[in-house]
Amino acid sequence: MAANSFFGRDVISVRDLDRRGLEDVFGAAERVMAMPAAERREVARGRTLGYLFYEPSTRTRLSFQAAMASLGGSSLGISDVASSSASKGESLADTVRTLSIYADALVLRHPLDGSSRFAAEVSGKPVINGGSGTEEHPTQAVQDLFTMRREKGRIDGLTVGIIGDLKYGRTVYSLLRALGNYDVKVHLASPESLRIRSDSVYDIRKRLDFTESEQMDDRVGELDVLYVTRIQKERFPDEEEYIRVKGSYVVGLDVLRRMKKGAIILHPLPRLDEISPELDGTEQARYFRQAEYGMHVRAALLALILREEGV
Amino acid sequence: MAANSFFGRDVISVRDLDRRGLEDVFGAAERVMAMPAAERREVARGRTLGYLFYEPSTRTRLSFQAAMASLGGSSLGISDVASSSASKGESLADTVRTLSIYADALVLRHPLDGSSRFAAEVSGKPVINGGSGTEEHPTQAVQDLFTMRREKGRIDGLTVGIIGDLKYGRTVYSLLRALGNYDVKVHLASPESLRIRSDSVYDIRKRLDFTESEQMDDRVGELDVLYVTRIQKERFPDEEEYIRVKGSYVVGLDVLRRMKKGAIILHPLPRLDEISPELDGTEQARYFRQAEYGMHVRAALLALILREEGV
Amino acid sequence: MAANSFFGRDVISVRDLDRRGLEDVFGAAERVMAMPAAERREVARGRTLGYLFYEPSTRTRLSFQAAMASLGGSSLGISDVASSSASKGESLADTVRTLSIYADALVLRHPLDGSSRFAAEVSGKPVINGGSGTEEHPTQAVQDLFTMRREKGRIDGLTVGIIGDLKYGRTVYSLLRALGNYDVKVHLASPESLRIRSDSVYDIRKRLDFTESEQMDDRVGELDVLYVTRIQKERFPDEEEYIRVKGSYVVGLDVLRRMKKGAIILHPLPRLDEISPELDGTEQARYFRQAEYGMHVRAALLALILREEGV
Repeated sequence: MAANSFFGRDVISVRDLDRRGLEDVFGAAERVMAMPAAERREVARGRTLGYLFYEPSTRTRLSFQAAMASLGGSSLGISDVASSSASKGESLADTVRTLSIYADALVLRHPLDGSSRFAAEVSGKPVINGGSGTEEHPTQAVQDLFTMRREKGRIDGLTVGIIGDLKYGRTVYSLLRALGNYDVKVHLASPESLRIRSDSVYDIRKRLDFTESEQMDDRVGELDVLYVTRIQKERFPDEEEYIRVKGSYVVGLDVLRRMKKGAIILHPLPRLDEISPELDGTEQARYFRQAEYGMHVRAALLALILREEGV
Repeated sequence: MAANSFFGRDVISVRDLDRRGLEDVFGAAERVMAMPAAERREVARGRTLGYLFYEPSTRTRLSFQAAMASLGGSSLGISDVASSSASKGESLADTVRTLSIYADALVLRHPLDGSSRFAAEVSGKPVINGGSGTEEHPTQAVQDLFTMRREKGRIDGLTVGIIGDLKYGRTVYSLLRALGNYDVKVHLASPESLRIRSDSVYDIRKRLDFTESEQMDDRVGELDVLYVTRIQKERFPDEEEYIRVKGSYVVGLDVLRRMKKGAIILHPLPRLDEISPELDGTEQARYFRQAEYGMHVRAALLALILREEGV
Repeated sequence: MAANSFFGRDVISVRDLDRRGLEDVFGAAERVMAMPAAERREVARGRTLGYLFYEPSTRTRLSFQAAMASLGGSSLGISDVASSSASKGESLADTVRTLSIYADALVLRHPLDGSSRFAAEVSGKPVINGGSGTEEHPTQAVQDLFTMRREKGRIDGLTVGIIGDLKYGRTVYSLLRALGNYDVKVHLASPESLRIRSDSVYDIRKRLDFTESEQMDDRVGELDVLYVTRIQKERFPDEEEYIRVKGSYVVGLDVLRRMKKGAIILHPLPRLDEISPELDGTEQARYFRQAEYGMHVRAALLALILREEGV
C-alpha cells in the first residue's frame, strides 16, 4: 500500500492540496463510505478531536463531530471561544497548545487569515483549518469537489457556474483554488459590488479559466454544476440596491427549467432565500447530499491524519 | 418475538401512543433496566442521537444524552438554537434536514405546536418530540406513567391528583391524554386563572374521568398519586393574586400527613417552592426516582426506534 | 493488592488528602500514563462523568472530559449553569441530585465555599470539587504536586517560590495546603495588597515553612520551582498601583538566568502577561507539561473513584 502522505499532517490551505492530494482524500472518502459501520467504528476508536471555534459554525462543528463519532472517536472543545469567558485574555497560541494536549487532532475556525497556519506551528498535534479569514475553508472545497465527482462522475470537463456574493464568502475562494487543479470552465455571476476580489484570484487566473458577469442567465444552459451562495442584505451599501439585484441571484423553477439534462445544483449551506424550497425535491438539488458527503470527506481526512496506514 | 412497531418510527404526540404502544415501551424499559451494563452498551453502539433545542431544556437534553450513552451511543447537536448565531436565518426544515444527515435519530424541543410533526416530515431520520408548543411532551408522559406503574404496581384503578399551573404546562396535557388510555380517576386543582384550557381537553373528557376545582384539600386523602407542577409568579395578572393563592399549591408535611398509606408524590422537575424540601427524604417523595425512570424510558424508546429487533 | 481508599469517595478538599492519599493518586497517575491506549480505554468503559460548572472554566472541564475519554468513558453536563436559563431558579441541591441520576460521578465548579461538600451530601454519586469558593481546587493541587514530583524527582526537600496574586486565587491556597504534607520551603511574593489572607493560612503555618515578601528577587537563585500566578488589573484599587507593581511579577529571561540549574517554572494557566512567551521553549518552562499531567492525574482520580480494584 502506498504511503499515506496525510498522516500527522496539518490541513491548512487549499493551496497545499494538489490534484494528487485531493484524489487521495476522495479515494479515502469512497472507502470510508463503503465500510460496514462496525469496521468504520474501529478506524479512530478512542481517538479524540479537539474543536476550537472562534466564530460559531454549528454546521462545520457538527459535521466534524459526526465524522469523528462514525470512526469510533469522540470530540471535545469550545464551540464559541468569543463568548466563552473562560478563555478571555488567553492568547490563541496558549489555547491551541492546551487543547492539543487533550486531543489527537484539532480543528480550528477563526476570523483571521493565517490563524490556522499559526496554530499549526504552536500545536503539538495536527491542525485542520475549519474556515479562516477571507479565503480559506479547505474541507469545504474538498467536500464540494467530491460532490461533483460523485454526482457527475468526473471533475475534468465540467462547466461550473457560481453565483451570489463572491466577494465575502471564503467558500468561493477555496473552491476556485481547488478547481484550479482540474480542467474545468467556470462562470461567475454576482452583483457588481460583490464581485470576486481580483487580488485574491490573481494567481488562480493562471490555472483556471473563468468568466465574470452580473448575470448567469445566458450561461445557465451550459452548466453542469450551478453552485449557489448566500447573498446577504448586510453586504449592500443600501437596501434599494439589494432589492434591485437580489432576484437575479435566486434560483427557482424557472432557472431549473433552463438547465441542461443531468445538471446539478449545489450550495454550501445554510441557505436563506437564494434557492427556492420548491427545488428541494428535484433531481437537480444535491445540496443536502453535498452536506452528507461533507461528513464522509471529513471522516476520510481524519482517518488519513490519525492513522499511518490510512484507510 | 413480536414485531417492534416503533422501529424507524417518529414519536411526535401522545395521541399516537395507545395503551398497547405504551405497554410496549414500559416492557422495553423494564428490560433495559434489568440489563447488565455491558449488554446495555451494545444496544446502540456507534449510533448517534442528534438534539435540536429551540428552547433550552437542560434536563430533557441530559436525560436523552445519558440514555444514549447508556446504550453505547453518542449525542451531538445544538443545545440552544435560539442563541446560536450559526443557524440564524436558516429554516427549521433545513436545520432538521442537516442534523438528520449526521445522526440516526433526532430529538427536537421547539416552542411551536406542530413543529415536531413538520420536522418528521422533512427529516430523513426518526424524530422524537422532546417537548413542543403548549400541549406535547410525549416522553415526559411516558415517564410519568411508567413511574406510576413501577411505584404503584399498576395504572388502572389509580386516583391521581394534579395541582398547580394547569394552563401553561405542556406536561399536564400530555399526561392527561396518556392517562386516558387507562381506567383512572383524576382530580385537578389550580387557581381559577390557571385552569386547564377546556378546548385542549375537549376530546380527553370522553375517555377520562376528571374533576376540576381550586383546592385539592378535600381530595388529598383519596389520592394514590399527587402530581405537583410549578406555579410561576409570572403567570399571574398581579402579584397580590399570586401571593393570595400560592400557599394552596405548595405541598408540605401537612399535606403529606393527610395522604393515604402508600400514596406517592410526583413532579416533572425542576421544582421551585411548590414541594417543600422537608418531603425529599420521605417515602412518598418519588420525583427523583421519576427522573431516573425518565432516563430509562428514553433509553427504551431509543432502543425500539433504532433496532428492528427491539430490546 | 491494597484496598483502594478512593473508591466511591468524594474529593472535596485538599484537607482530605494526606500524604498517603496524595501518593496513592500519584501512583495511579504513573500507572495510567504507562498504560497502552487500548488498555486505558477499558478502565471506565461506558461510565459517565457529569459536569456542572457554575463558573465557566473551559480548561478544567476539558481536562476532565479528556481524562474520561482516555479511560473509555463519556461526559455530559452543563458548562455554564449561570447562563443556562433551563436551571433558573432550581436549587443547587436539585440540580446536583438530577445530574447524579445521569452520571457515575460528578465534577462541580461553584463560586461558593462549601458548595462541593453540600453537593456531596445530596448527591447519590461521588462528587469531585473542580474548584470552589476562595480556597479549594484540590485536583489542581494534586496536578501541581505531581508535576513537581515528576519533573524534579521528589517533593521533599524542594524550595518553592510562588508569585503573583496570592490573595484571590484559590489555586494557591490549595497548593500550600497540599505542600504542607511534605518537607518543603516556600517563599511567597506578592504586592502588599494581594498578600495571602492570613486567616486562610493560619493552620497551614503549623505544618509549612513559608516566608512572605513583596519581591522574589533575592530568592530566585534558591528556588527549585517557581510557581507563577496571574495578576489581574481588576484586583487593584487603582490603575497606577497596578502599573507600578506589575513588572515585578512578570517572569522573563532575566529571571530565568538567575534561576539555578534544573529549576523549573510552573503556572496553573491560563496565562496573561506574567510569563514572557520567550520562555516557552526553554528547558525551565514546564507549564504545558503541567497541563498534560493534569489530565492524567484527573484520569487517575476518576479511575480510583469508579473502580473498586483501582488502577
